[in-house]
Amino acid sequence: MTQNPVLKPFLAVLSGQKQAVPPIWMMRQAGRYLPEYREVRARAGSFLDLCFSPELAAEVTLQPIRRFNFDAAIIFSDILVIPHALEREVRFEVGEGPRLEPLDTPEKARSLAKRADLNRLEPVFEALRLVRRALDPKVTLIGFCGAPWTVATYMVAGQGTPDQAPARLMAYRHPDAFADIIDVLVENSIEYLLRQLQAGAEALQIFDTWAGVLPPREFARWSIEPTRRIVEGIRKKVPDAKIIGFPRGAGALLPAYVEATGVNAVSIDWTAEPAFIRDQVQSRVAVQGNLDPLALIAGGDALDRAVDDVLASYGSGPLIFNLGHGIQPETPIAHVERMLKRVRGKAG
Amino acid sequence: MTQNPVLKPFLAVLSGQKQAVPPIWMMRQAGRYLPEYREVRARAGSFLDLCFSPELAAEVTLQPIRRFNFDAAIIFSDILVIPHALEREVRFEVGEGPRLEPLDTPEKARSLAKRADLNRLEPVFEALRLVRRALDPKVTLIGFCGAPWTVATYMVAGQGTPDQAPARLMAYRHPDAFADIIDVLVENSIEYLLRQLQAGAEALQIFDTWAGVLPPREFARWSIEPTRRIVEGIRKKVPDAKIIGFPRGAGALLPAYVEATGVNAVSIDWTAEPAFIRDQVQSRVAVQGNLDPLALIAGGDALDRAVDDVLASYGSGPLIFNLGHGIQPETPIAHVERMLKRVRGKAG
Repeated sequence: MTQNPVLKPFLAVLSGQKQAVPPIWMMRQAGRYLPEYREVRARAGSFLDLCFSPELAAEVTLQPIRRFNFDAAIIFSDILVIPHALEREVRFEVGEGPRLEPLDTPEKARSLAKRADLNRLEPVFEALRLVRRALDPKVTLIGFCGAPWTVATYMVAGQGTPDQAPARLMAYRHPDAFADIIDVLVENSIEYLLRQLQAGAEALQIFDTWAGVLPPREFARWSIEPTRRIVEGIRKKVPDAKIIGFPRGAGALLPAYVEATGVNAVSIDWTAEPAFIRDQVQSRVAVQGNLDPLALIAGGDALDRAVDDVLASYGSGPLIFNLGHGIQPETPIAHVERMLKRVRGKAG
Repeated sequence: MTQNPVLKPFLAVLSGQKQAVPPIWMMRQAGRYLPEYREVRARAGSFLDLCFSPELAAEVTLQPIRRFNFDAAIIFSDILVIPHALEREVRFEVGEGPRLEPLDTPEKARSLAKRADLNRLEPVFEALRLVRRALDPKVTLIGFCGAPWTVATYMVAGQGTPDQAPARLMAYRHPDAFADIIDVLVENSIEYLLRQLQAGAEALQIFDTWAGVLPPREFARWSIEPTRRIVEGIRKKVPDAKIIGFPRGAGALLPAYVEATGVNAVSIDWTAEPAFIRDQVQSRVAVQGNLDPLALIAGGDALDRAVDDVLASYGSGPLIFNLGHGIQPETPIAHVERMLKRVRGKAG
């Protein structure tokens, strides 16, 4: 008789098994709210230099695990490394966010390379190997990429904008040219994620930060379908790959996303409606989320109540406790500790 | 035997009666995409000067009706006239949006006047009277205010911000002080809307532009409950007042909003999920929306398809055709004409 291997708590949840104490990590957990991160960041030159220095990237990936004993580490990198590997110019201006050469006409779109040079991302794979070696075996290592829609919004606009209108307009005006960009991103994201799995990632997250600006028809075409193809492409090679989707702001479109893409879990933001999510989403896959990052800044009673709300809303099913979006630099570390104590004390 | 008076199409929809051709207007229909608006705007001094010049405000309110024969006119004004009437300093910097004295501590919140001087808003009421007199009787005149939550976000931050974090933080940290601001806004919004009805408004819209950043508990307290109190306060004096709510981005929280507030209709943005809205919202009240303003900029096939999607999604119930958010200055007038022709031709 063979016995099923005992899964780590994080991977067990992704297999649909509820845990008495939900595993916990935080989006952007390696970041400026940590003095030890700021210290490494100051040494690293540009933001991309940090992403592409395996030792430093591994170090900042491990920092929050050492300090907070999270259940998962996410490799320190950025969603725009794929455009970089496609030999698009990508820069990060301090305090300004990313800057790329805009790809905002059908002509420019046609000039885009079909195949990324993934050797340019070897430092990311090396960082994954370093982290995996250093990490407690009970902690899960997460790899990630940006969803094609979200990456394309930056490639088209050349930067972040309040509602990523340039990409939405291009998709309306030149759907075929825009589809070509998406296709390139789909194919290369599959390869990129497979190489992350080879390098030691045990779960993958696909960040579709700008999914929430799309009407249903466009959401189906530009968010759901490319994500579905990525999940399918990964599973063709790694049938049991564990994948988390995060179509931020998808709201009532989430059930269709879950149904079509085949992800094992979805990350939800803090505006989700609990009964809807339980009935329509958590009944099919695990959910991850969804503390308001501002409650974590506020601390005190407001934080306790917000933590309790997440546990009460989603704790009866498979849940990975997380924020609803990235942690903000001004977050007090003591509030993170308070949150952890409450989640682990409360649910235990 | 008395006969029911025949309602104008717009008001009929607010009474739950589906129209074969949905009535149509556009949010921010008086605006910079119109040359005749830009001409008046250039003569008016500041943005608030324009709001407070009855003849000019009436003129720009009427311009889109003359040009497009919309079914409703919305009085030209701004949601920040209430802080102005509360004697807070409110300025509009060109290209920068509003600037107010921030009200970001409990001490400052306590200093807020309880009662607005609504005589300061007499020019708005006068503009309503002028419009009502000039308007074709078949066209409905809409008055409006900002929802207390949304107005408070600007009052606390002193400006618009990407996610109105300052107000959300204040509500977490100092809920009682924040509740005092909300209470002031509720009471004065009731009076302000009642005076708009007296001056000729036949329907009212409550804009909660920033509702979508709130978690469920905060949404219930800061968006639903203040709106419910306003609707109740209005109906105490005008029992059959017709009120449209627009909690932008409320997503799956919309049914709770509709149920609790008692509004006659909700405006929905372009990311709404049709089946969910039909089952959970349009089964109870009329819906207004929800064309993507970027589809209107794009024009052509993309516009036609987007118009058809709105009609196919919501045309089988009580629908007011509108945009999902305000029209943008770069929108070609020819695209507005194409939209109108398609809605009126198609649905007729």
